[in-house]
Amino acid sequence: MQSPNQPLVDNRDVAEMVETLAGFGAWGETGVNRLVYTPEWLAAQDQVAAWLAEAGLEVERDAVGNVWGWLRGTDRGKAIVTGSHIDTQKPGGQYDGALGVVAAIAAVKALKETYGTPRQTIGVVSLCEEEASRFARTNFWGSRAVVGAIVAGEADKLRAIDGPTMAEIMHDLGLDPARIPDAKRDDIAGYIELHIEQGPLLEEQGLPVGIVERITGYKQFWLDVHGQANHAGTTPMDIRRDPMAGAAEIISGVINTAHRMGRPAVTTVGRMTVEPNGRAVVPERVGFTVDARHPNEEQRQLLLERHERLWTEVAERRGLDLQVRVDSDRQPCECDPGLVAALAGAAEAAGIPSMRMNSGAVHDAMQFSAICPVAMLFVRSRNGISHSPDEFTSVEDATAGTEVLARALHAIAY
Amino acid sequence: MQSPNQPLVDNRDVAEMVETLAGFGAWGETGVNRLVYTPEWLAAQDQVAAWLAEAGLEVERDAVGNVWGWLRGTDRGKAIVTGSHIDTQKPGGQYDGALGVVAAIAAVKALKETYGTPRQTIGVVSLCEEEASRFARTNFWGSRAVVGAIVAGEADKLRAIDGPTMAEIMHDLGLDPARIPDAKRDDIAGYIELHIEQGPLLEEQGLPVGIVERITGYKQFWLDVHGQANHAGTTPMDIRRDPMAGAAEIISGVINTAHRMGRPAVTTVGRMTVEPNGRAVVPERVGFTVDARHPNEEQRQLLLERHERLWTEVAERRGLDLQVRVDSDRQPCECDPGLVAALAGAAEAAGIPSMRMNSGAVHDAMQFSAICPVAMLFVRSRNGISHSPDEFTSVEDATAGTEVLARALHAIAY
Repeated sequence: MQSPNQPLVDNRDVAEMVETLAGFGAWGETGVNRLVYTPEWLAAQDQVAAWLAEAGLEVERDAVGNVWGWLRGTDRGKAIVTGSHIDTQKPGGQYDGALGVVAAIAAVKALKETYGTPRQTIGVVSLCEEEASRFARTNFWGSRAVVGAIVAGEADKLRAIDGPTMAEIMHDLGLDPARIPDAKRDDIAGYIELHIEQGPLLEEQGLPVGIVERITGYKQFWLDVHGQANHAGTTPMDIRRDPMAGAAEIISGVINTAHRMGRPAVTTVGRMTVEPNGRAVVPERVGFTVDARHPNEEQRQLLLERHERLWTEVAERRGLDLQVRVDSDRQPCECDPGLVAALAGAAEAAGIPSMRMNSGAVHDAMQFSAICPVAMLFVRSRNGISHSPDEFTSVEDATAGTEVLARALHAIAY
Repeated sequence: MQSPNQPLVDNRDVAEMVETLAGFGAWGETGVNRLVYTPEWLAAQDQVAAWLAEAGLEVERDAVGNVWGWLRGTDRGKAIVTGSHIDTQKPGGQYDGALGVVAAIAAVKALKETYGTPRQTIGVVSLCEEEASRFARTNFWGSRAVVGAIVAGEADKLRAIDGPTMAEIMHDLGLDPARIPDAKRDDIAGYIELHIEQGPLLEEQGLPVGIVERITGYKQFWLDVHGQANHAGTTPMDIRRDPMAGAAEIISGVINTAHRMGRPAVTTVGRMTVEPNGRAVVPERVGFTVDARHPNEEQRQLLLERHERLWTEVAERRGLDLQVRVDSDRQPCECDPGLVAALAGAAEAAGIPSMRMNSGAVHDAMQFSAICPVAMLFVRSRNGISHSPDEFTSVEDATAGTEVLARALHAIAY
């Protein structure tokens, strides 16, 4: 039995696995471009499976290509599972998703080496897809398969940015889309995901680790503002029905609304299209996204009501035709108090400073919450950057997070 | 000799020529898609040449494909010229440009039939290109050739939206780009262009005809607003450097500035690009056009100063990096008081109600102003619409404008 403050996790394990995994789909000096079901992704999943086998876990591949490793417990009940995803943005960095898989392997390997067989089965999962980077409309392909949330026929409808459908791509890899329902599991008692923060809050506080209490709720809209296209030189300002003027007012308004509501409310306009998009033409149509998030459901509803009142008022006053499409609408996800307490206790026992926080990003853990209690552990992101080759988390912070994960799993499963 | 109020121009001439010309590049029921140097454009220029020849004019084609018709006067001095362009937007309508060529032919034909040989030579011109619809960066190809404003090597640099360079396309038609300087003329004493208004002012006033005193000055900018790309969920509003927030504030600001300055100030943001243009990403960069116009130079400078102060202030306050590129900058063009008076006198003599006005659009006449006095005559546009298959001018209004043009040419050249 080791002393309470002796680390369980070897930081060389974490560093080597991060570096090795980053080699699959390496993009420039520090980037990774590893889209689901590509050759580089296949090689990375094979590497994960090899590490799991080397660590003495029982390896399983499911119907969508998620890779699982099982450290069987003496009690044959449901498992506590930890992991994340290995697909990336195009290009992304070395840590988003990948670090959660590496930490899971390193933690369970350390537990097995130090403590042997657990009471409760511990699972490690490397999920196949989370980023929606190859298929624009399907993030969470891996975790949605696990919770049974992929609808029949979905694989035939999803089309990759490189052309073929999800079903065609799966067939080429020997995965049968008809068997997707087989990936659904009922043997998971809880899910803990370690992930880079992707934000600046831990860095602001000078802390390596954060324990997530809530994952944000969000609502995503597409607003289409229609006006009257006109010649830019000949149409007086006072009689224009200019959708660009309306869009600019709405965009300023929703951004200011979230800013004034204060942290953690956030609203973002990230995508826009203009028609006809000519220099000397008052546009006919301006379309744009609005992504509004709050981890508190009551506050989220207040934010959304303010946004909707604002854009309705602007469109009416300006004589513009506004069409609003809701693309997603998800309530905040509460992390399980027991799992949160286990993480907090583990951080304290390890002497690793941490804070409670919310997740402004969405994660596979949100999907798992449909079938089991979930929790998340964040590690510090340099400059809060993610979805970029510039994303960086130090080996020290990554190992600190892994240590907390390992100790929490020990408290739960041994 | 006819009586003062008997019309010179036959409205059937105008109607038939408009309809025939619209057949070259017809697009749907009422549109025309006739880009410079295409087969449909070639056929239209041949038709114009045939009409000029039928009317008894001496036909000339110059080095860029402008078609000229000359009604030689007894006095061998410089000519008074009228005309416009026959290329269109993609698609445009039947009147923008084409009506000025039709009116010129119909007016000169009527003058020759009624009054015979003039004292001063009268020229009709069908200019090859004005719209910048096939080559994004070259409007006024025809009129710039006439005034000698095409720079050496320009034809090699301009690339058509369909692929080849201007030089390659000209070669295929038997036009030698090296001979472009031959199109420059020094035999023009004045240029009068009839054009559809492309705006709503004549319709607002219930008048068929407007006499242009000034053609607007304009300045066109491309603004690049750089900020910091960030995850839409994890970056608090208060620490974002969001170029979309800055762009929206600038766009609202410049539009409101022009609106408050009142007619005829106009400012338009018609084109925008966003990078990376992702729903869940605070953008890295937002670029957009600003097109600001005023026919009074002092007021134009005031408008521009306000715009520049505004966007500088917004960028500084928001910590955004702003790069401003000037794509064009042109002072207002004053129409010649003598030609304006000739047009006003002609309208009065014909009993056709008219008003003095400015042109908010730019025209070939602006180019001609580099070598001779110019004037313009506007005819009413239904709903102010142009650059669209919906553009419409009645035969009555088109003929009224042509009648004023014919009487003014008579006053000048006979």
